[in-house]
Amino acid sequence: MRLLLTAFDPFGGEAVNPALEAVKMVRPVVSSVEVVKLEVPTVFGKAIQRVAEAIAEIRPDAVLCIGQAGGRFDISVERVAINIDDARIADNEGNQPIDRRIADDGPPAYFSTLPIKAMVDAIRKLGLPGSVSNTAGTFVCNHLMYGVLHTIANQKRPIRGGFIHVPFIPSQVVARPNAPSMALADIVRALEAAIGAIAAYDTDVRLAGGKEF
Amino acid sequence: MRLLLTAFDPFGGEAVNPALEAVKMVRPVVSSVEVVKLEVPTVFGKAIQRVAEAIAEIRPDAVLCIGQAGGRFDISVERVAINIDDARIADNEGNQPIDRRIADDGPPAYFSTLPIKAMVDAIRKLGLPGSVSNTAGTFVCNHLMYGVLHTIANQKRPIRGGFIHVPFIPSQVVARPNAPSMALADIVRALEAAIGAIAAYDTDVRLAGGKEF
Amino acid sequence: MRLLLTAFDPFGGEAVNPALEAVKMVRPVVSSVEVVKLEVPTVFGKAIQRVAEAIAEIRPDAVLCIGQAGGRFDISVERVAINIDDARIADNEGNQPIDRRIADDGPPAYFSTLPIKAMVDAIRKLGLPGSVSNTAGTFVCNHLMYGVLHTIANQKRPIRGGFIHVPFIPSQVVARPNAPSMALADIVRALEAAIGAIAAYDTDVRLAGGKEF
Amino acid sequence: MRLLLTAFDPFGGEAVNPALEAVKMVRPVVSSVEVVKLEVPTVFGKAIQRVAEAIAEIRPDAVLCIGQAGGRFDISVERVAINIDDARIADNEGNQPIDRRIADDGPPAYFSTLPIKAMVDAIRKLGLPGSVSNTAGTFVCNHLMYGVLHTIANQKRPIRGGFIHVPFIPSQVVARPNAPSMALADIVRALEAAIGAIAAYDTDVRLAGGKEF
Repeated sequence: MRLLLTAFDPFGGEAVNPALEAVKMVRPVVSSVEVVKLEVPTVFGKAIQRVAEAIAEIRPDAVLCIGQAGGRFDISVERVAINIDDARIADNEGNQPIDRRIADDGPPAYFSTLPIKAMVDAIRKLGLPGSVSNTAGTFVCNHLMYGVLHTIANQKRPIRGGFIHVPFIPSQVVARPNAPSMALADIVRALEAAIGAIAAYDTDVRLAGGKEF
Repeated sequence: MRLLLTAFDPFGGEAVNPALEAVKMVRPVVSSVEVVKLEVPTVFGKAIQRVAEAIAEIRPDAVLCIGQAGGRFDISVERVAINIDDARIADNEGNQPIDRRIADDGPPAYFSTLPIKAMVDAIRKLGLPGSVSNTAGTFVCNHLMYGVLHTIANQKRPIRGGFIHVPFIPSQVVARPNAPSMALADIVRALEAAIGAIAAYDTDVRLAGGKEF
Repeated sequence: MRLLLTAFDPFGGEAVNPALEAVKMVRPVVSSVEVVKLEVPTVFGKAIQRVAEAIAEIRPDAVLCIGQAGGRFDISVERVAINIDDARIADNEGNQPIDRRIADDGPPAYFSTLPIKAMVDAIRKLGLPGSVSNTAGTFVCNHLMYGVLHTIANQKRPIRGGFIHVPFIPSQVVARPNAPSMALADIVRALEAAIGAIAAYDTDVRLAGGKEF
Repeated sequence: MRLLLTAFDPFGGEAVNPALEAVKMVRPVVSSVEVVKLEVPTVFGKAIQRVAEAIAEIRPDAVLCIGQAGGRFDISVERVAINIDDARIADNEGNQPIDRRIADDGPPAYFSTLPIKAMVDAIRKLGLPGSVSNTAGTFVCNHLMYGVLHTIANQKRPIRGGFIHVPFIPSQVVARPNAPSMALADIVRALEAAIGAIAAYDTDVRLAGGKEF
């Protein structure tokens, strides 16, 4: 099995992106999965284009995109991407779309086709906090998740796809009182556990993982 | 203009539901909008059925459903409902579906057809905190929002629909350290301001209101 | 019984201080207590001096000082003031002392001589969140609480004294996502309930109100 | 230089105490400081007694006590201990004192005699979040910090003393949504950096480290 593992470059004034730092440290083969890594620009449009090109070139069996969710407490496996861009801040090229469809011909949302409950379960079994998230936001992370799932939906070959958000690492919160963080080594272990679950589960496990709101 | 305004009964062990208490106090006519109120059971399936029946009977121009989001800090106007039930806790009749589609024939998501940015703007202009939320969860609130928008989508007559989540009221947090709350009177004012925005705006205003995640 | 009720002017870039706004709205007589109000500058040294002068002039039986704790979720009745100034930000005249004793001849700390548990209990009985706090910080609030208790300790006549911190009001958090707030009217009710408890209890009630850290 | 480094056993229903796990992993010699370790029962009275006995036996130059502050985001170096026990929960032998003085003959508070600003600075220079805390609570942690400083104050030989609170480790928050944690290895590094600062600084550095409340 071949997995395309992507991560964004730093954005929002940060010097590093923990998603990118963690992806760099993921082993090239995890649970017999060949991991091909790709850095993606935090730019509307270009992010999707870059990953679509890599999908065409690498022909992966699954695509897992990683992004930073500074302020979240745990590794959150995204359930769904919605067909809208609504940027509170500018992306890395100054774009700030408001309430714009990502794909005019696309459905209102795509659900992840990765085994999200099994991925969360694998992370928790390591003793690390993880959960299913029901929103990837409306910035470039959601944009890319939607775009990748839209790209995949139009392929002849079956490819699974999804997204994981990771917290700040400790160095990012030294000057941010009361912001949670997770050690980089733990983020790496969580991502490798998630990759293992992707390899092990074609269909997801039946575990409660919802939220009231 | 006629608005159907719904609120859930208490759930999750709470003695009150601030959504219901607030809806009771909304004036019968707000900004020339005739407000018809409906209490809805916090029960999968029955909640949608009850509102669908009221829509058929009352023939409103818009439907606004209100629910409690205990732990949120502000009035959050929901952007989207997704086609999935995933209950962390049981509903008021003991149902706890996991990863079940709400409508087998429905799209993956419905976007609110209310002017969500204008509604948030009207709330903030009162000096009250409000924001667009990109997830209504996967419990009965999201279930009802999806179900109402699905019901409306199949009507010949155009009806707009959407959902607002409200925080705990202070009495609910006396025994919950570090849980945010909002005064009931302020929730009522916020709901009336949102109704005013629904009356004033057929299409939404262009204001940034997104989130990075 | 006569109570001197003080509140600081706005600081830290805020347009209002909810402590001051609330004190303005407290009734002149609460539970037979004559309430004399005083606005205090958020300035090291001058704050204590102003209240000490008022104590000499008004000859109150008790002094209750009110300050803003933006970010706290409830009405917090302070237990103790410590003999140190350590300012993270400048006060309203640009002073920013670091690790300086408030009174060279003073003890390391003063405990409130108001019935703090009874005050919290009275607030909670209104259905409003309240708790005992074990730190008033190291800025002008702690400075004033210490200074008032030091002033009182050196009087011949017995005077009781203490401090209450109040949260932001809603208008202050419109542009602060995930910051808690409390309605001004509820803060006023809480302060009046606390004053009632001061009048009713010469010695405090025996209620658990501690924290692990 | 010889340092007595103590940590509490698990309490409050937890299977582990991250303070104890971290202390076990601190190296026996850190920055030329000989580290002597001691496990302390989370029990009022006995905790102080155990450490007082160890001080008499080991004759350390400094005492650093470590405790768990589940819910805090960073390594917090305590500034002050207050002369009061007020237990919200029972200790490990069922004691739950309310508003009881720790030492009838003691002052209202003791300030840490360790270089708390230098310790925080050393932790931050590792890229880990740390801060000065102005409350160690009113449970066994504050009790021990006060008791140790009171014991030390009555010795002929000069001994410095203080307390550090550490967050949950990740395994403790797997079932606690939205609770912060820190990797055990990072807690260990932070403690060793703090010990290095104790060795390097007889008097504290002049750095802002206060809080408004």
